[in-house]
Amino acid sequence: MNGTITIDAAAGAAPANDPADHGQADSGQADGGQADHNRAAREALLAGYQTVRQLTETLAAPLSPEDQQLQSMPDASPAKWHRAHVTWFFETFVLQPHKPGYCVFDEHFNYLFNSYYEAVGARHPRPERGLLSRPTASTVTQYRHYVDAAMTDLLDCADAAALSTLAPLVALGLAHEQQHQELLLTDIKHAFSKHPFAPAYQPPQSFSREESPALDFVDFAGGIVEIGHDGHGFAFDNEGPRHLTLLSPYRLATRPVTCGEYLAFMADGGYARPDFWLSDGWALVQREGWQAPLYWTHDPHHESWQVFTLTGRRAVDPAEPVCHVSFYEAAAYAAWAGKRLPTEAEWEHAAVSGRAEHAGGFLDRLHPHPRPLHDDGGDPASRLRGYGEVWEWTRSSYEPYPGFKPVAGAIGEYNGKFMVSQIVLRGGSCATPHGHIRPSYRNFFPPAARWQFSGIRLAEDL
Amino acid sequence: MNGTITIDAAAGAAPANDPADHGQADSGQADGGQADHNRAAREALLAGYQTVRQLTETLAAPLSPEDQQLQSMPDASPAKWHRAHVTWFFETFVLQPHKPGYCVFDEHFNYLFNSYYEAVGARHPRPERGLLSRPTASTVTQYRHYVDAAMTDLLDCADAAALSTLAPLVALGLAHEQQHQELLLTDIKHAFSKHPFAPAYQPPQSFSREESPALDFVDFAGGIVEIGHDGHGFAFDNEGPRHLTLLSPYRLATRPVTCGEYLAFMADGGYARPDFWLSDGWALVQREGWQAPLYWTHDPHHESWQVFTLTGRRAVDPAEPVCHVSFYEAAAYAAWAGKRLPTEAEWEHAAVSGRAEHAGGFLDRLHPHPRPLHDDGGDPASRLRGYGEVWEWTRSSYEPYPGFKPVAGAIGEYNGKFMVSQIVLRGGSCATPHGHIRPSYRNFFPPAARWQFSGIRLAEDL
Amino acid sequence: MNGTITIDAAAGAAPANDPADHGQADSGQADGGQADHNRAAREALLAGYQTVRQLTETLAAPLSPEDQQLQSMPDASPAKWHRAHVTWFFETFVLQPHKPGYCVFDEHFNYLFNSYYEAVGARHPRPERGLLSRPTASTVTQYRHYVDAAMTDLLDCADAAALSTLAPLVALGLAHEQQHQELLLTDIKHAFSKHPFAPAYQPPQSFSREESPALDFVDFAGGIVEIGHDGHGFAFDNEGPRHLTLLSPYRLATRPVTCGEYLAFMADGGYARPDFWLSDGWALVQREGWQAPLYWTHDPHHESWQVFTLTGRRAVDPAEPVCHVSFYEAAAYAAWAGKRLPTEAEWEHAAVSGRAEHAGGFLDRLHPHPRPLHDDGGDPASRLRGYGEVWEWTRSSYEPYPGFKPVAGAIGEYNGKFMVSQIVLRGGSCATPHGHIRPSYRNFFPPAARWQFSGIRLAEDL
Amino acid sequence: MNGTITIDAAAGAAPANDPADHGQADSGQADGGQADHNRAAREALLAGYQTVRQLTETLAAPLSPEDQQLQSMPDASPAKWHRAHVTWFFETFVLQPHKPGYCVFDEHFNYLFNSYYEAVGARHPRPERGLLSRPTASTVTQYRHYVDAAMTDLLDCADAAALSTLAPLVALGLAHEQQHQELLLTDIKHAFSKHPFAPAYQPPQSFSREESPALDFVDFAGGIVEIGHDGHGFAFDNEGPRHLTLLSPYRLATRPVTCGEYLAFMADGGYARPDFWLSDGWALVQREGWQAPLYWTHDPHHESWQVFTLTGRRAVDPAEPVCHVSFYEAAAYAAWAGKRLPTEAEWEHAAVSGRAEHAGGFLDRLHPHPRPLHDDGGDPASRLRGYGEVWEWTRSSYEPYPGFKPVAGAIGEYNGKFMVSQIVLRGGSCATPHGHIRPSYRNFFPPAARWQFSGIRLAEDL
Repeated sequence: MNGTITIDAAAGAAPANDPADHGQADSGQADGGQADHNRAAREALLAGYQTVRQLTETLAAPLSPEDQQLQSMPDASPAKWHRAHVTWFFETFVLQPHKPGYCVFDEHFNYLFNSYYEAVGARHPRPERGLLSRPTASTVTQYRHYVDAAMTDLLDCADAAALSTLAPLVALGLAHEQQHQELLLTDIKHAFSKHPFAPAYQPPQSFSREESPALDFVDFAGGIVEIGHDGHGFAFDNEGPRHLTLLSPYRLATRPVTCGEYLAFMADGGYARPDFWLSDGWALVQREGWQAPLYWTHDPHHESWQVFTLTGRRAVDPAEPVCHVSFYEAAAYAAWAGKRLPTEAEWEHAAVSGRAEHAGGFLDRLHPHPRPLHDDGGDPASRLRGYGEVWEWTRSSYEPYPGFKPVAGAIGEYNGKFMVSQIVLRGGSCATPHGHIRPSYRNFFPPAARWQFSGIRLAEDL
Repeated sequence: MNGTITIDAAAGAAPANDPADHGQADSGQADGGQADHNRAAREALLAGYQTVRQLTETLAAPLSPEDQQLQSMPDASPAKWHRAHVTWFFETFVLQPHKPGYCVFDEHFNYLFNSYYEAVGARHPRPERGLLSRPTASTVTQYRHYVDAAMTDLLDCADAAALSTLAPLVALGLAHEQQHQELLLTDIKHAFSKHPFAPAYQPPQSFSREESPALDFVDFAGGIVEIGHDGHGFAFDNEGPRHLTLLSPYRLATRPVTCGEYLAFMADGGYARPDFWLSDGWALVQREGWQAPLYWTHDPHHESWQVFTLTGRRAVDPAEPVCHVSFYEAAAYAAWAGKRLPTEAEWEHAAVSGRAEHAGGFLDRLHPHPRPLHDDGGDPASRLRGYGEVWEWTRSSYEPYPGFKPVAGAIGEYNGKFMVSQIVLRGGSCATPHGHIRPSYRNFFPPAARWQFSGIRLAEDL
Repeated sequence: MNGTITIDAAAGAAPANDPADHGQADSGQADGGQADHNRAAREALLAGYQTVRQLTETLAAPLSPEDQQLQSMPDASPAKWHRAHVTWFFETFVLQPHKPGYCVFDEHFNYLFNSYYEAVGARHPRPERGLLSRPTASTVTQYRHYVDAAMTDLLDCADAAALSTLAPLVALGLAHEQQHQELLLTDIKHAFSKHPFAPAYQPPQSFSREESPALDFVDFAGGIVEIGHDGHGFAFDNEGPRHLTLLSPYRLATRPVTCGEYLAFMADGGYARPDFWLSDGWALVQREGWQAPLYWTHDPHHESWQVFTLTGRRAVDPAEPVCHVSFYEAAAYAAWAGKRLPTEAEWEHAAVSGRAEHAGGFLDRLHPHPRPLHDDGGDPASRLRGYGEVWEWTRSSYEPYPGFKPVAGAIGEYNGKFMVSQIVLRGGSCATPHGHIRPSYRNFFPPAARWQFSGIRLAEDL
Repeated sequence: MNGTITIDAAAGAAPANDPADHGQADSGQADGGQADHNRAAREALLAGYQTVRQLTETLAAPLSPEDQQLQSMPDASPAKWHRAHVTWFFETFVLQPHKPGYCVFDEHFNYLFNSYYEAVGARHPRPERGLLSRPTASTVTQYRHYVDAAMTDLLDCADAAALSTLAPLVALGLAHEQQHQELLLTDIKHAFSKHPFAPAYQPPQSFSREESPALDFVDFAGGIVEIGHDGHGFAFDNEGPRHLTLLSPYRLATRPVTCGEYLAFMADGGYARPDFWLSDGWALVQREGWQAPLYWTHDPHHESWQVFTLTGRRAVDPAEPVCHVSFYEAAAYAAWAGKRLPTEAEWEHAAVSGRAEHAGGFLDRLHPHPRPLHDDGGDPASRLRGYGEVWEWTRSSYEPYPGFKPVAGAIGEYNGKFMVSQIVLRGGSCATPHGHIRPSYRNFFPPAARWQFSGIRLAEDL
């Protein structure tokens, strides 16, 4: 996602609970029923708002004011900035246009916390976000409280008409904040990895070592299939228009590539043999001296590979899905394995086939690292497992779907303008919030990016 | 093409005149007929060889030894290097494996004139090609004569069996050399543009100023269509496999965008308004201070735009197709015009529709700059004109076609390894040799590249 | 000072209050007298320790934990780092070797807070000091208390022999901490200047506008003179050996160049005419687009120059000494004025001539910006005024004095290894602590450095 | 010399044979004697002109047009550019002002071949000199002939008055050309070293291996001494004013450091131990991975060090003076040896003491590499040997002598504006033309420069 977030074109986005829809369906009811319905819709919206907003603070809780200011590379942002930016989003796109008499918390913030919306005015240079010692973390907390109070007030008083306007915007703002929750984690992980003593974001968790199930493939017949968001529930504008496409028969691996498999690639000269690599990837390997995924270090004392995680540094677990690999590494691994990466259409078609198994999100388990997959004894070849542990690089460049048109205005800057030189990733990761993973979701990053929880699922022609 | 060339996977490539095919068809004939046939095939092959090889020398003729050594950026190569590299190609892939007793001209040349074939060994760093004062231009001429003599000797003695092996390799080598002919021109153009006095590669030609025909569009119904090379004649491996794809109804402009139209975009703030631009493109515009296509300079005395061409500097002609624009500029122009760029499948389908008109190649007219289009009074909306004057940026990233597999060995490095972070261009330009333009041809360059003769054709949904 | 500090070669340094000296002088006294003397010496040393250490905390008090972590360029360090590094110095060079049973506060700190002592082991890369979110500012405060308690304990129990060892080391540590006090201010000033809203380090102070006295010159006859530290009181090793040198007759300006005079240079095309500039300086002016001293910005609304100071942004005061100029600007100004910069020997000879007037240090007045000079009605040509408001660039490269030899070991790394590509500055600034200004003091920075309080005093041949 | 040349402030420079001086001395002679004298002066001047000019062409003779265009780094210039620039110097400063009716060869050349004279107008960017394919080498040859003819014509017709004006300018132009002769060699050496096959500029010469004489030291008492050019013969403006300075007693090594001695430094961890190095030097060693002097490569097959020379690559000769070391390496070597580098005043005083032995210049022997020193059996401690084989780094920054003032106008840009961040070298090298070596000569380069023939002579305090 270019280290940034992408959000919905509000107009066409259907919120998870659309009060207007329900209102129409219930149009024959008495006023009392309508009022009840509105109250229920308001309460659901507010509950969703509070849940998402609270998670951001829970994620930031282990971080000191100094931690929250860290910016370890231009692509990453400080945790404090994430906390303020998502709040500015509600202030700018919900409160200012829709709450009469709303006073902004601090007029400077529009300059500081605008991410990339050219239409909203000038903004602070991205690589210098780490120099924003002011506002302090504690002022940002006040800012969040201030905006939360105004949002609560606004939603509490909303009638049916207001709700039909506000609900999609709030849904958008919350999806946006969820994207930043994942970035907050991946960015602080990168920052901590640069600290000489590699501090842990949270204490290590014990877990039982397991073998991952054997690699197998599921077959798909292809043909003319429909992909893109189907309009039920929230989606970003880049997930549509829904459209037909033509697929040749193909197979997808039942699970992501594991660290153990990746170690075999490394042992076989994976980083030393140009024939596996795209030309740009090979040049990068040479220039950067890559020998392993990001965050892996070789420990000469133990003759083994260590990995830095959000719970500290420890030995690489061969059963875990490999992650923090670039698209180049994913493609090189696939070439070495005699396979290829799936296209995004192949991936999405498989995900909605009824044979894919969602792995769950970070929110439910607070385990910020991909888990080894269980072998549950079922027939591995009947379904795809582990989807949602690591983002899966596809072989597809990030391009507009046929008929895609960005919305006019600031809202239109969210996705369309990034549609070049990026690769689509599908699925979701251990750091993706619950409710933010769906089959039509198009994540995207440049092919060299490694600081997301990005892994590999193999494909091949049938 | 990443400033480099891409060549065929020899195995599957069908040469223009395949003696083996003909031999099989004629297998019932007498020996004398077979011998005649072989002789004719040999002569045709040799004539093709001599024609292409001669053109390279004709193109280099206006250049002094010093000119031939210029390398003005890492993406470009010296003319001398092009002349030697294409010769090395014949030496390495034809003479060494197939001519018994062949002695290489100079064993150092494998290091110096290998472009990017990892499988063929170490090679000189690309950005330092301009430091190769040795061999001199005159030694390179000797090298060319030496290899030409050996090639002539080899082809002269080839029997039917040998011809069936050699013909595809020679076809490949010649297509390869044609690619470098175009690069030789675009590279020397760039180098001369850096000289303070902007020397002309050839004397200016007078031409009558004309109005270009009005812009119109041709409609296409879409549906399931077949694209990719059909196997008749030579093609590079990236043009296949031929496959079905699904197109929505669309329209294509009847001609490329002209300089006059582009000036209107510029006058309307084209380079100052971020809303037209992809994010990466806008960042580049800001960083590089782009205000116009490459080679355009504003003359404050004449209050007009000048353009540097291979025939010197002169006023911009509004009737000419605009060229030397990046993909970013092409996409921004399309956004400003309320249109979009075509996909490569849309383009190819249109090109084989019977309604596209080939503009001819550079070889026939020695006019190294796109010409204004004539308005010949026909119905403009019935066909696409001007194809072959400027390469046309598409909206398609350069990716493998379904089922594409690179060939093993050095030959497999030609195309597949560049399939990331590049955009496909279609058509051909005023600098493309005759016979090198075909509907299935996939040229490719990074989105920021401007030193090729790259222009814009608009499309829209129907 | 290369953005870093330089400290004494302990062996030869004479502390401000040398108990050993006094002990010898009093050798005939009774034990009681000796004991009294020791107590007085201990108390004086301790009082000095507490005063200097307290000032560091006073200077850091206006800074939040986030402010204290800012590193806005590789040459600057975070305030928190300064606070910890000077503490590490006492821990490493005083407590560890001289306090039996001393346990270091945190063994990681030797890696984090070593500045550049190769002999003391590996250390954290300087440009990444801003990424050290841990330890937090509050942990650094605990570290300071811990070391202060141990130091107090050590000094309280020191007998005469111990004092004679400790006193020079403590004097060195305190001089070192004073250097970092100045850097703490200049570094936070730079960091705040990068914040879009230019926060003030302390509230603005009102002051009466005054005219500065007219520029005049004081004559010196030159001849063989003695320069270098004379051994009374503390000095760094680079201030010796004291030695003879030969000076031609010369004159020095009675006061530093003012902003008003510098504005005249600017108005006369100072930054646009290469003939005033050293070649490297002119290249820098072109490359960086310098138009004025650092921290000056032109306000198009007011048609005037504004300056960012530690008390916020305000109009440039023509009566103030100009500061934040590089050596290149100082030399260009002197060339424009038809004068030259003094050599360091000329400067020092003048400073000890009895005709120089010390301006006082920052500590006494908490005014972190150079003040306008008063015209007190005395004969201006009789003495040099304003010395101590701005560091004064000399025309002397920073080189070893004749006979200079660095001490062996870590202690020898302090000064000698920086003696190339740096220019000597003399005097002291509004940010130099009281007691840290002396005529033999050799400050040094690269010629392009501008973030210190560096100004200009003119000289000429007599 | 900043990779460039420095020339005389014409006004004060005394040419080698000053006709005006002689004219005055002979003012009582008859006309005939005067005429004879003028003719002799003219002929001497012309002969000098022809000799120097011819040497440039002799030096360029082994270079092809392509070789002459090589620019392998921004600090170096193509041989063709040197040949044209020194010619432009005569055209601009002698012919245009002093030859009535002179027409410049090509008005473009003032832009192309001005090196750094801001007062003479805009000029081509230095790092792009290698892109000047036009004019060709052969046009530059014509340019030289054209200017030589005009110069010959001018000098042939000069009367006494004209000669007194012209002689100093011609002397200056010739000294300037001699500087570029040395640069032509060091620049082509650098360019050839970047070629993968390291071509030789001239064929290798056989020479008998010799032991170099043992290292010894010569003592000097110091005191007040006079340095700077004494006004007899030609000198650059930076060699004056002649002035007194005070020296402490010191010793200088009798010969430069040899490769054998330097190998001992390397074997003792010279490039791995920071305690020998200035801080900037150590950073450079780390960043660039320096392990040996420039042009040395380690041959793992022979377990020995090879050196690239103008006669090709061969084994390092332990008896030769080490060269192509930076100031940092010279200073580190001296620290390792327990010595120091001399100051430039110490060096010059020794050179005029009658105890220094000139080694001769390149012109006499066409041996473009420092020779081993002979042990001739004399008392080594009585004199300094080998001066003139390698430039000798001093411990002195390049600064103006007391009372130095640059001349007004273009002529004043030659030396003064480079007087910062450079180190003085003294002596001369195997590539310095005969007649261009003198004791007061101040060569200068940045401390990191290694592509000159720069070596080491040790000193120490007495």
